[in-house]
Amino acid sequence: MTYQGVIDRYCHHIELPPNSARITLLEGNTPLIPMPHLGRQLGCDLYVKFEGLNPTGSFKDRGMTVAVSEAAGRKVSSVICASTGNTAASAAAPAARAGLRAIVLIPEGKVASGKLAGAIAYGAEVIQVQGSFDAALSLVLEITQKKPIALVNSINPFRLEGQKTAAFEICDEFGKAPDWLCLPVGNAGNITSYWLGFRQYDRGNPRLLGVQAEGAAPLVLGHPVDSPETIATAIRIGKPARGEQALEAVRESRGKIISVSDREILEAQKILAAEGVWVEPASSAGLAGLVAQIQGGSSEYRNCRVVVVCTGHGMKDPSVITDRFVAKVIPAEYEALRSLLI
Amino acid sequence: MTYQGVIDRYCHHIELPPNSARITLLEGNTPLIPMPHLGRQLGCDLYVKFEGLNPTGSFKDRGMTVAVSEAAGRKVSSVICASTGNTAASAAAPAARAGLRAIVLIPEGKVASGKLAGAIAYGAEVIQVQGSFDAALSLVLEITQKKPIALVNSINPFRLEGQKTAAFEICDEFGKAPDWLCLPVGNAGNITSYWLGFRQYDRGNPRLLGVQAEGAAPLVLGHPVDSPETIATAIRIGKPARGEQALEAVRESRGKIISVSDREILEAQKILAAEGVWVEPASSAGLAGLVAQIQGGSSEYRNCRVVVVCTGHGMKDPSVITDRFVAKVIPAEYEALRSLLI
Repeated sequence: MTYQGVIDRYCHHIELPPNSARITLLEGNTPLIPMPHLGRQLGCDLYVKFEGLNPTGSFKDRGMTVAVSEAAGRKVSSVICASTGNTAASAAAPAARAGLRAIVLIPEGKVASGKLAGAIAYGAEVIQVQGSFDAALSLVLEITQKKPIALVNSINPFRLEGQKTAAFEICDEFGKAPDWLCLPVGNAGNITSYWLGFRQYDRGNPRLLGVQAEGAAPLVLGHPVDSPETIATAIRIGKPARGEQALEAVRESRGKIISVSDREILEAQKILAAEGVWVEPASSAGLAGLVAQIQGGSSEYRNCRVVVVCTGHGMKDPSVITDRFVAKVIPAEYEALRSLLI
Repeated sequence: MTYQGVIDRYCHHIELPPNSARITLLEGNTPLIPMPHLGRQLGCDLYVKFEGLNPTGSFKDRGMTVAVSEAAGRKVSSVICASTGNTAASAAAPAARAGLRAIVLIPEGKVASGKLAGAIAYGAEVIQVQGSFDAALSLVLEITQKKPIALVNSINPFRLEGQKTAAFEICDEFGKAPDWLCLPVGNAGNITSYWLGFRQYDRGNPRLLGVQAEGAAPLVLGHPVDSPETIATAIRIGKPARGEQALEAVRESRGKIISVSDREILEAQKILAAEGVWVEPASSAGLAGLVAQIQGGSSEYRNCRVVVVCTGHGMKDPSVITDRFVAKVIPAEYEALRSLLI
């Protein structure tokens, strides 16, 4: 057997207690897709790291394999998280495999049922809380302090241990780090993990371009956002759990943190799909930021090797696409088809 | 760069005209997930080949990279297919990447919008035809005979050339073919391709267990089914394009072709999800068939190495899950959560 998941592949680089279990769905090993056509337009050597091809459709599977392996190793019977979408499915899948009960708290009425389908399918107990995401997270914190239930939200340090393997993979593909890494920033755990990963792996460091949505840009504004709003639900976060670490990573890398509009995000989603890569809206923020920088006159990306991280698959949020769609209808006759196609 | 898609990896085993383009989204290289827990229950050494982690979420991406590469090489400007779901997205993605126009004909009102979201996202022109799938396919055949438009439905022989690479990958992982391969059978192109692949690769041959849905089981019944019905929409086909070849493959392999009920299919979907693998209903038919065989008293699988092929991701059909779901609601108070979890 060749590939056995990120813990197996990078066991010498991941901190995990010796009594941990090994719970994997063969997450990671995601494609790094060359984008020659788009790269020529933008004047750089461009690649997409397509994290939507992890088992549950999002990048979070890398961190969860480690967090759930640690939890299963210390014999808890349950894992719990608050979630507005991807975290839920990503926690539920390895928990199911480990035979652990998975409990997911969601803010009532704020989560599209399509986003929760995975968590439900994997057998998680989904509980709606009459309150905000923050209220749900407070309940999670309280119960994990009082009961032997493992918290797997991103404040769990083992999530970072797994998440950083994406940086290792990129270095292994190129033999060294790229010049730039562009990625969406919501709760800021992912950008923090990449930076940890690049520094630890010691194949050079990229400059980081962290991109927030304008309506949910606390790290750009310099203060929390009380009611974050953006079509990119996966980064609709006003108080990032790893905000300080993300800002430090950006500084250390001589990078930038910027924001883009929902219009720019949707436009970048279209650009990626037109190259055959369909991602959920939040996932296109990295490219939207790169395009905004280059169109704004920056020459810092010229002739550089640039990796854009796409965090989740388009199938995570199909309604963004189908809500705007009206199909043409024709009778089942050749002439009708021929005249339509000319 | 390590992995560059199935054409690159298996170029010596794929028949493709020399002037073909190379259009890839790095399809293939999908995980072969060990299922030790379920295998112990069933008395065999069990694995899932999870084809839902191809770029558009289904196994069809393997065949489409070859079909679209061939089409782009002979300078057509458009590709066309009739589809009730997965084929559409799988054709549209590489077509977009190749700069080709993609046209998808769907039977009016018969296709869930969620299944078409990918095709729309990738920029395909989706046209509803007032008639059945067969009527849509007839139009596709006629226009590709009269106009320089490439047909990419499964009668396109280059689809098989790409599809068979899944058999190569399985042999490469184990060093040889498994004892059994269990998979869903609808249009019968996939089972035909696997068999071609195993024979060509010459690392031994598995016995094939082809599994149809009871309401759409023409190869079990021995005659076409006029109005096929099953919840497993991806195999809801009454007149398989490759039926004769599939039956021949099953005979040659000393295998079987059987049918299972929708209830058994949904039960197998649950069993897989409880191991952390969420697939669309059709994809669980292979496991449903294996379970039915073993529960029916067959000892032919005992202590064998068995691979179950899961053709599409659960995200392709979330409504099967969410339609039955009612979330519990609690106030944002610790006691409410605690009492619910006990």
